[in-house]
Amino acid sequence: MVKRKMVYLFEEGSAEMRNLLGGKGAGLAEMTRLGLPVPPGFTITTNVCNIFYRLDRKFPPGLRRRVHEALRTVEQKMGRAFDSDERPLLVSVRSGARVSMPGMMDTVLNLGLNDRTLAAVVRETGNARWAYDTYRRFVQMFGNVVMGVEHDEFEHILSEVKSRRGIVLDTELSEEELRDIVTKFKQKISEKTGKTFPEKPEQQLWEAISAVFESWNNRRAITYRKLNGIPEDWGTAVTVQSMVFGNMGDDCATGVAFTRNPSTGENRFYGEYLPNAQGEDVVAGIRTPQPINREAGKEGASLEERMPEVHGQLIAIKAQLESHYKDVQDIEFTIQNGKLYLLQTRSGKRTAGAAVRIAVDLVNEGLITKEEGMLSVNPSTLDQLLHPVFDEKAEKRRIGKGLPASPGAATGKVVFDAEQAVEMAGRGEKVILVRTETSAEDIHGMAAAQAILTATGGMTSHAAVVARGMGKTCVAGCSDIAIDYSAGHFRSSGGVTVSRGDYISVDGTEGIVYLGQIPTRRAEVTSYFKTFLDWADEIKRLGVRANADLPVDARVSRQFGATGVGLVRTEHMFFGADRLPHMRRMILSETTEDRKIALESLLPYQKSDFIGLMREMDGFPVTIRLLDPPLHEFLPKGEAEVRSLAHEMGIEPERVRARTEALRELNPMLGHRGCRLAVTYPEIYEMQCRAIFEAACELKKENRNPVPEVMIPLIAGKEELELLKKDVDRVAGEVFSAYGFSVHYLVGTMIELPRAALLADEIAEIAEFFSFGTNDLTQTTLGISRDDAGRFLPDYVGKSLLKYDPFQTIDEEGVGELVRIGIQRGKKVNKHLETGICGEHGGDPKSVEFFHNAGLDYVSCSPYRVPVARLAAAQAAIRGRVKKSGTDQD
Amino acid sequence: MVKRKMVYLFEEGSAEMRNLLGGKGAGLAEMTRLGLPVPPGFTITTNVCNIFYRLDRKFPPGLRRRVHEALRTVEQKMGRAFDSDERPLLVSVRSGARVSMPGMMDTVLNLGLNDRTLAAVVRETGNARWAYDTYRRFVQMFGNVVMGVEHDEFEHILSEVKSRRGIVLDTELSEEELRDIVTKFKQKISEKTGKTFPEKPEQQLWEAISAVFESWNNRRAITYRKLNGIPEDWGTAVTVQSMVFGNMGDDCATGVAFTRNPSTGENRFYGEYLPNAQGEDVVAGIRTPQPINREAGKEGASLEERMPEVHGQLIAIKAQLESHYKDVQDIEFTIQNGKLYLLQTRSGKRTAGAAVRIAVDLVNEGLITKEEGMLSVNPSTLDQLLHPVFDEKAEKRRIGKGLPASPGAATGKVVFDAEQAVEMAGRGEKVILVRTETSAEDIHGMAAAQAILTATGGMTSHAAVVARGMGKTCVAGCSDIAIDYSAGHFRSSGGVTVSRGDYISVDGTEGIVYLGQIPTRRAEVTSYFKTFLDWADEIKRLGVRANADLPVDARVSRQFGATGVGLVRTEHMFFGADRLPHMRRMILSETTEDRKIALESLLPYQKSDFIGLMREMDGFPVTIRLLDPPLHEFLPKGEAEVRSLAHEMGIEPERVRARTEALRELNPMLGHRGCRLAVTYPEIYEMQCRAIFEAACELKKENRNPVPEVMIPLIAGKEELELLKKDVDRVAGEVFSAYGFSVHYLVGTMIELPRAALLADEIAEIAEFFSFGTNDLTQTTLGISRDDAGRFLPDYVGKSLLKYDPFQTIDEEGVGELVRIGIQRGKKVNKHLETGICGEHGGDPKSVEFFHNAGLDYVSCSPYRVPVARLAAAQAAIRGRVKKSGTDQD
Repeated sequence: MVKRKMVYLFEEGSAEMRNLLGGKGAGLAEMTRLGLPVPPGFTITTNVCNIFYRLDRKFPPGLRRRVHEALRTVEQKMGRAFDSDERPLLVSVRSGARVSMPGMMDTVLNLGLNDRTLAAVVRETGNARWAYDTYRRFVQMFGNVVMGVEHDEFEHILSEVKSRRGIVLDTELSEEELRDIVTKFKQKISEKTGKTFPEKPEQQLWEAISAVFESWNNRRAITYRKLNGIPEDWGTAVTVQSMVFGNMGDDCATGVAFTRNPSTGENRFYGEYLPNAQGEDVVAGIRTPQPINREAGKEGASLEERMPEVHGQLIAIKAQLESHYKDVQDIEFTIQNGKLYLLQTRSGKRTAGAAVRIAVDLVNEGLITKEEGMLSVNPSTLDQLLHPVFDEKAEKRRIGKGLPASPGAATGKVVFDAEQAVEMAGRGEKVILVRTETSAEDIHGMAAAQAILTATGGMTSHAAVVARGMGKTCVAGCSDIAIDYSAGHFRSSGGVTVSRGDYISVDGTEGIVYLGQIPTRRAEVTSYFKTFLDWADEIKRLGVRANADLPVDARVSRQFGATGVGLVRTEHMFFGADRLPHMRRMILSETTEDRKIALESLLPYQKSDFIGLMREMDGFPVTIRLLDPPLHEFLPKGEAEVRSLAHEMGIEPERVRARTEALRELNPMLGHRGCRLAVTYPEIYEMQCRAIFEAACELKKENRNPVPEVMIPLIAGKEELELLKKDVDRVAGEVFSAYGFSVHYLVGTMIELPRAALLADEIAEIAEFFSFGTNDLTQTTLGISRDDAGRFLPDYVGKSLLKYDPFQTIDEEGVGELVRIGIQRGKKVNKHLETGICGEHGGDPKSVEFFHNAGLDYVSCSPYRVPVARLAAAQAAIRGRVKKSGTDQD
Repeated sequence: MVKRKMVYLFEEGSAEMRNLLGGKGAGLAEMTRLGLPVPPGFTITTNVCNIFYRLDRKFPPGLRRRVHEALRTVEQKMGRAFDSDERPLLVSVRSGARVSMPGMMDTVLNLGLNDRTLAAVVRETGNARWAYDTYRRFVQMFGNVVMGVEHDEFEHILSEVKSRRGIVLDTELSEEELRDIVTKFKQKISEKTGKTFPEKPEQQLWEAISAVFESWNNRRAITYRKLNGIPEDWGTAVTVQSMVFGNMGDDCATGVAFTRNPSTGENRFYGEYLPNAQGEDVVAGIRTPQPINREAGKEGASLEERMPEVHGQLIAIKAQLESHYKDVQDIEFTIQNGKLYLLQTRSGKRTAGAAVRIAVDLVNEGLITKEEGMLSVNPSTLDQLLHPVFDEKAEKRRIGKGLPASPGAATGKVVFDAEQAVEMAGRGEKVILVRTETSAEDIHGMAAAQAILTATGGMTSHAAVVARGMGKTCVAGCSDIAIDYSAGHFRSSGGVTVSRGDYISVDGTEGIVYLGQIPTRRAEVTSYFKTFLDWADEIKRLGVRANADLPVDARVSRQFGATGVGLVRTEHMFFGADRLPHMRRMILSETTEDRKIALESLLPYQKSDFIGLMREMDGFPVTIRLLDPPLHEFLPKGEAEVRSLAHEMGIEPERVRARTEALRELNPMLGHRGCRLAVTYPEIYEMQCRAIFEAACELKKENRNPVPEVMIPLIAGKEELELLKKDVDRVAGEVFSAYGFSVHYLVGTMIELPRAALLADEIAEIAEFFSFGTNDLTQTTLGISRDDAGRFLPDYVGKSLLKYDPFQTIDEEGVGELVRIGIQRGKKVNKHLETGICGEHGGDPKSVEFFHNAGLDYVSCSPYRVPVARLAAAQAAIRGRVKKSGTDQD
């Protein structure tokens, strides 16, 4: 094993050494190299942390010598000495992992103080009160972090002294009282730990270093690592830095700043500071920080006004850091007696909107390339920019919190079942469907509702998945509500009773439920957003289409940059209040003739839907999936609904029940659905095809350019598709000859069964396109019913039996393998085969990258995910190129 | 196109030309070449039939000339002439396809007669009555077959004449009357068809040939071809042969014979004949045929006694034909005036038992090789030899007929639901579960019953499949019964009411339901059967194990030659009346502790089951699948059962209902089952493993050799198996250290999800064996729920969208591809990986051949299918060798 350096002075490190020095250590080293004013110090590597644990929490041989050498160098630079009676050196000891783990690990400030060095500090500064306050802070922090005494114990002593004196603020404490408090703190520590507070700075230092290493394995750090997928063996570095003080008087201050506005992205230095304060005071939140820049209405408070020179220095440093790091920086600084010191720099966290604007600006400023700009924004954050939001100014009464299952904001009247939802929506009312959980039997109600609220279920529960698919707002698993269906109300954990017909508002982006109506407003698409995604389009190879069932969805999709509709779920059209009765009549038909009559009534609806969709998508393909779900999904389940339907249809309830019973399935997911319906009842697809082709012809008469793609679901083999395609082509021929002209169209299939993927070569002899239905393909390949997975899938992800929820992120090894096989075998036989994917995964960035690499032609996702997919596709293309050029060099 | 010969004289053809000459033509040709006494004739090829249809039912040019040439040759051989006033030649015109299609197509005898030639025949034979009878037969047959007049029309005339005369038999008709009848027949033909009966033999001949070709496309032939998978373009040949007559006097006869006994296989010439009769008289069944061999009690009637010379000739021909064809022959012969003529020879159809005996005998006689012997028996027929049958002598009252869904014979009391079945079986009663249809919720009832009878559903309905899996007798889809659950009885279509508790008997081999108790008897395994299957074992490569849940199943399996148990479904054990309460208590447990207590009560049962199974299989592997079905399958569904269970358990019914509701799944097939149960409740598998290893240790103490294989179901990836295998190994370690010794065992997995097949390489790093669960793999790969497939699968097979029912015969292209991938990837990583299959397909011969070719190590099937699988495996090995040596030569 190569002997690795264990300790790096700041001037020996660099930004590239983040893995070894941690984020903080690397940032300080880099700033030191840039010549910025950084208090001298050094970093003990993450590697030492690993060795420390390997040696059963002992320091490796040689470490002490290295640390002493580094400390000597710091002493020389500072003209101070550790543990000295004259100009003693005080240091901070901080943790720093490869990635930021905010608040997870420990820090000790002002280390090196004891009664003796304190006297020297008092002598040197002439500020005894400050010195004792510094001592008090040190003992408190060390006692807590290193010696393990609860924070409350110290606060209790502080409060006692203050209340005895009748004061509120720490700053009002006198030198005398602070001295008394230090003594009491030390007594408390002895009492609680049985140990004396260490007076020797040397001992303080090593115990602090040890404590920082140990904090890598405290419970909250372990939990955080698990949640964020941070490997245990990354370890933490320890940075030891000479102290500077922002609390020595009015020419002192401490602050944090962003080189650009992290909320809006505006290119203006942005931050807050506290005069005469130490960093922890900012965090404590007792005093209100002041702005760095001059602000109207707050004249005189800003750093710009108070310390214009230092402010000018910071502005210069902003430019230097940004051009060096090519990114927005988040810095911490301290001003000691008018002199600026930088204590940290790191990439600044920002909102999605800011990220987009910053990326565009940095590209325009020539600091980064478009590709770098693309990679700087997390695609998943984009859709929060697009969904409707509640008016910020409206008053809101929050009554529950659940999971943010499908983003957006919606208001409506509470209904408790699907039939009610359909009925009230039919009367033009806006409703919110509230259920303990939803199932396939609720789909028509979900389609009719503005939003869905469930009391149980997770992010991939039926409600969540279907709502996202429909682009409906949804809060799932809201355990704050208890539904009593029979009473027709729910009660919130706060004791509010909400009855059927009462208004509630649901925020699916945040997962919050409010009482009453709240006005919503549409999010605006900025020009930065547009520019940014136009660049994404320049770079990406994958096409991005939208899943859209209604013309309005298609319009939104176009605005978000979709170049086609990749999935029209025609069944959702049948759930409309005006259509459902015809659909049910069709299902209850006992002869083909009756069925055809009912279908005839549905045809005008379908046709007008298709006209609307293809008009919005003029010139772009619209992929229409023929009827897919099992027929029983359209029938009512409750006894009352059965009776009412029977009454409406003028038939015996017994007949409705008998038909429902006859259609009942044990595993509807694997049942009589998809193209299997058409094998049994060819007249259903025939009607749908007639509607599609008539719609296309009508549009062509208007001189528009409709591009219909007829998609047949659940194909398991070539023979089915061959049989059904014949019918499609026959109907097309009939319609075209009636109109006297024809429209170009494609006939293709979903690849959503493992068998279809395996037999893709045969199927591609017939199909003109493939659309991978990765939702169903995931269900069949893994043998997991999405509707039932809630009972065990969380366990599976929790125990790492699956890397991700396979319904959110594609299972690359299993389902992905079938997608690869499908593409490869399909394209081998049919070079012109168009391939896409229209499952939930089309809007998931990690999955989009997979689809790019697998060679698909396009992805299709819900309208609001279109920008996400566009960016993810661009990132995939960039990473693909990098990987490729990397390979080429090998 | 090469000009092909259209007409072959018998002496120009051979047995190899069956495709061109049809079975009949080829047989006559071959016998002619062998020098056997065959009346001369010729055959028009099947190829001409195809051309006939291509030319829109016209004869190809040149055919007439060829036929005339051939006819001239026949005339010369016979010393007769067609359409001659002196010694006229009469011929038969018969159809003959490549394979026998009994009764499907048409035949005309005695062709060439008219008033003029008839006079010549009368002159020649001096037997006017016979001549008129022959003429009458000809006109009737020609009128029916060629001219399309209904058979009844002729029978009507005949009856009229007979009743006028007051006679019963045709043979009592006088010459005069026959002449009169001929005239009436001709009048009727004119009346019905508007055409005159053709007097010219030439015209008769061509019309008859045309009619035979047309009969290839009559409705019954088309149906038969569809049912038997016979391609349309095979066509039929037409054989024209000079007539010989068995009805010219007492030195004449006609008969059929098998060269060995087709029922028993005994090596003795076997057949029947009618003196002074024509072939059709045998078929008509008016006269009782007499035995060919002398029989005790029927002295004087046999051919052996009546015509010893001819009998001797036949015995010689038997030897000649068998040694030539190397198979048992089914021959037709006619004796005209003491001279023997052979009219047909073909491979003799035989019972399964006879087929086995004949194969063994022919091998021992040196006529065929063992391999040829293997190939001579259809594996599917074997299991009919093994199941119990009803005592033949018992009186039986049949009350219904359904599908022979699972073979065997059983008697028991009628019950109408699963709970009743379990309860009564618990009291030691034999019950038969009668349901409209069954579902997963009935499994415990099916397990408790002797047999299952359903009113609806097909050969792959839930009842059928599960019953076959369990080796239970089952009649499915018996539409003769109408069940009234609430009244607690069913009514048969014949009006019999059978109430709960009444005895019925069910014959699953024939699909028949009888009223009352009928004694059954065990089928005997003959020494021929044993020898035959021992030879199969010498030849086959695949191992054959049995699916067995009980020691008695294991014992039967060993008797049938299974070398191991490939699948123990442990859940079936839990359905026992004594175990189910504990199982339910376990499921209703609210804490892990309660669950463990309930599991403890189950442990002794499991352990004793495993001891029994491994004792029966001493020295052979027993593959035990840990709990697989979703827990809700074990809970009662009806309200009354819920109450009674709650009462038993001493808990509120509400709790039972709530738990049942919580466990309810939309798609249980894809739900919380298999190893997913163990991920959530590890204690279940832990108990089962403890039972397995303790059982193994107990047996080892008895100096036996248990070979347990622990099988974990529904694995989707390596991680699951890794997690669960750790637990298995831990429990094994604990048990072995308690006993102080260890037992060799394997841990493996089912491959029953597409993902598992695709990731077989990773899984094989952990698994020591794979067992392909082709039932579930078929469900997931095709996305078809077996329980729900009844609605569309018959359509799919009917419309040729699928070649076979994929639950009966493996879908080679889809599911089979995954099996191939699984084996290949698994063995690549783990050379010692043992691979088998334990789905329904393990007992299907066509699937077994696939598994052989795919390289599996063994198949496992229900005990009664073990002999089927052994033979199928041998046949696969033989075919594989032939194919391979064929390839080698290329």
